[in-house]
Amino acid sequence: MRSDIERIGKRLFAEGLLCGSFGNMSVRSGNGFFITRSGSYLDVPGTPVYVPMEGDVPEHASGEYRVHRATYGITNHQAIVHAHPPHAVACSLACDRIVPVDAEGMLLAPLIPVVGGACGSDDLAEQVAGALNVYRVVVARGHGTFTAGENLDEAYILTSLAEHSCRILFLTGSAGRR
Amino acid sequence: MRSDIERIGKRLFAEGLLCGSFGNMSVRSGNGFFITRSGSYLDVPGTPVYVPMEGDVPEHASGEYRVHRATYGITNHQAIVHAHPPHAVACSLACDRIVPVDAEGMLLAPLIPVVGGACGSDDLAEQVAGALNVYRVVVARGHGTFTAGENLDEAYILTSLAEHSCRILFLTGSAGRR
Amino acid sequence: MRSDIERIGKRLFAEGLLCGSFGNMSVRSGNGFFITRSGSYLDVPGTPVYVPMEGDVPEHASGEYRVHRATYGITNHQAIVHAHPPHAVACSLACDRIVPVDAEGMLLAPLIPVVGGACGSDDLAEQVAGALNVYRVVVARGHGTFTAGENLDEAYILTSLAEHSCRILFLTGSAGRR
Amino acid sequence: MRSDIERIGKRLFAEGLLCGSFGNMSVRSGNGFFITRSGSYLDVPGTPVYVPMEGDVPEHASGEYRVHRATYGITNHQAIVHAHPPHAVACSLACDRIVPVDAEGMLLAPLIPVVGGACGSDDLAEQVAGALNVYRVVVARGHGTFTAGENLDEAYILTSLAEHSCRILFLTGSAGRR
Repeated sequence: MRSDIERIGKRLFAEGLLCGSFGNMSVRSGNGFFITRSGSYLDVPGTPVYVPMEGDVPEHASGEYRVHRATYGITNHQAIVHAHPPHAVACSLACDRIVPVDAEGMLLAPLIPVVGGACGSDDLAEQVAGALNVYRVVVARGHGTFTAGENLDEAYILTSLAEHSCRILFLTGSAGRR
Repeated sequence: MRSDIERIGKRLFAEGLLCGSFGNMSVRSGNGFFITRSGSYLDVPGTPVYVPMEGDVPEHASGEYRVHRATYGITNHQAIVHAHPPHAVACSLACDRIVPVDAEGMLLAPLIPVVGGACGSDDLAEQVAGALNVYRVVVARGHGTFTAGENLDEAYILTSLAEHSCRILFLTGSAGRR
Repeated sequence: MRSDIERIGKRLFAEGLLCGSFGNMSVRSGNGFFITRSGSYLDVPGTPVYVPMEGDVPEHASGEYRVHRATYGITNHQAIVHAHPPHAVACSLACDRIVPVDAEGMLLAPLIPVVGGACGSDDLAEQVAGALNVYRVVVARGHGTFTAGENLDEAYILTSLAEHSCRILFLTGSAGRR
Repeated sequence: MRSDIERIGKRLFAEGLLCGSFGNMSVRSGNGFFITRSGSYLDVPGTPVYVPMEGDVPEHASGEYRVHRATYGITNHQAIVHAHPPHAVACSLACDRIVPVDAEGMLLAPLIPVVGGACGSDDLAEQVAGALNVYRVVVARGHGTFTAGENLDEAYILTSLAEHSCRILFLTGSAGRR
């Protein structure tokens, strides 16, 4: 699983969907999940940290563990990717929901909700988890995407797709319109 | 041929002409063609799948095989590349045909038709094949480029060129004008 | 330390935060600092050059050593990265201070000062050092970012973050407004 | 020299200054120059071809050899790089000369002339050579940059710089103004 995390991290980095050491990802396992380390670069992530669904959280787990825990708690998703794709972030500052106009976006993520909540807060965790219970892609306003699926590849592909769709919205001058 | 597919896939990915696992490519062979696998990343494509010109299609062939089959059926092209270059996709939402203003585009793809048709439909297949019978580059509206040529390199170069030309159109404010 | 410089240089180059052989970085050591070589590519930097806090400067030290010396002289920073991120440079031409609107920017660099001063001048050195005594990110107008921190990773992450924040400002049409 | 060509080609490709197999470069040698092969990818260029200053040109030499020959004929430059940086190409369609507003551009290429001439023509060769006799960077309108210097690194760095300067012009809304 560590090699999957690194493989996906390298793709996210190469596609320009991350900046610096921001972003994180996790994979459900037993009654908890493995999550990337706090402050790690996702393309060279090191050993992921196991976080149980309840109780204390190991010191080196990503500070965003609350979102992952809340999402696994109320959904059946098996993996979550959190990235900072620039066009998706910019879109989220201009509208409350993102409606792709490109073919792939319309097919796979026809409505992308935008939610609020401060970085690392329980509020953000609840709002993202609630959205991911209905959708597979959500954008935290001005912050980044959270995508979920059967595995890391599925979540990554949705991240890449969301950025592609938002880029098309910007290029066609449709970002911010509804 | 598998190594050619991988080599071209890596170039397409490095140039930002793909997103996630979208896009596909094929090479004509005998009375059929080898096509990339459904859901594969084009930069690590694995073994391509042989699709005959008629009859059943193997399970793992790219879902876009209809476009490739229809194109090989009515043209002499030997290879086809389908990608999702962002500026070409955005251009196709703003106009019915793309007219490059840069020197290479004017020389090698002076008129790029835009066609309709839903992803994976026979309608799309017919429209793309019809366009590729006359041109070497076509954009499926809001979806992506289909380029064809003597070999994968030729088709890839046209994909890269089309995106370059469309980017210049956007930068110069000419996209959407005719 | 040389391997850290090369590792960070490769990240900066891959993220598009450098162009050609421009940019430089340094790490404090004893009563001076190691700085990248004049004219070197930061992703293949070669052996860094030791510059003492006072006195003669070795021939091959980056011409920007004045900024680094002045900054180490009046701050406690341990490492400095100077890059040319395009959106940050463009932002600096439009305003006197950059105020991020994205979540990470608001958290980690809520106000990014813009300073003047000609390339390689003592004026630039003084202005950048003064700003880095209060902030961890500063943009030299029309020139590039200077970021500082406990180590090269921290400075690099702030460079990447500043560019991300400025890109969001441009995408949302907020660049130049205050 | 072949390894220098490949090293610089890889940098140009990684920075997004090339598309497909377009672009070429050369290094003066004796009474002629080595130039990249026609149709080769500059990041995997293969063996360069020797072109004498007068007389027949080997079959596989880049079709743009006329520009290189004319430039070496009337200047002292030792190396030439021709690339297709998108913002420089777009700028050249909007104005007759490019005046950078960023610090590095103002220092190293304060005025970048734009010239005309069809791809592969003697007219283009003459105009580019004439401009490179005075400047180190020139843009062929709607086509690409030609940069020259003491060696390939110098020419490459000017290519990268020109694109950076033109990108800043676009971001700040100054492209096309004079």
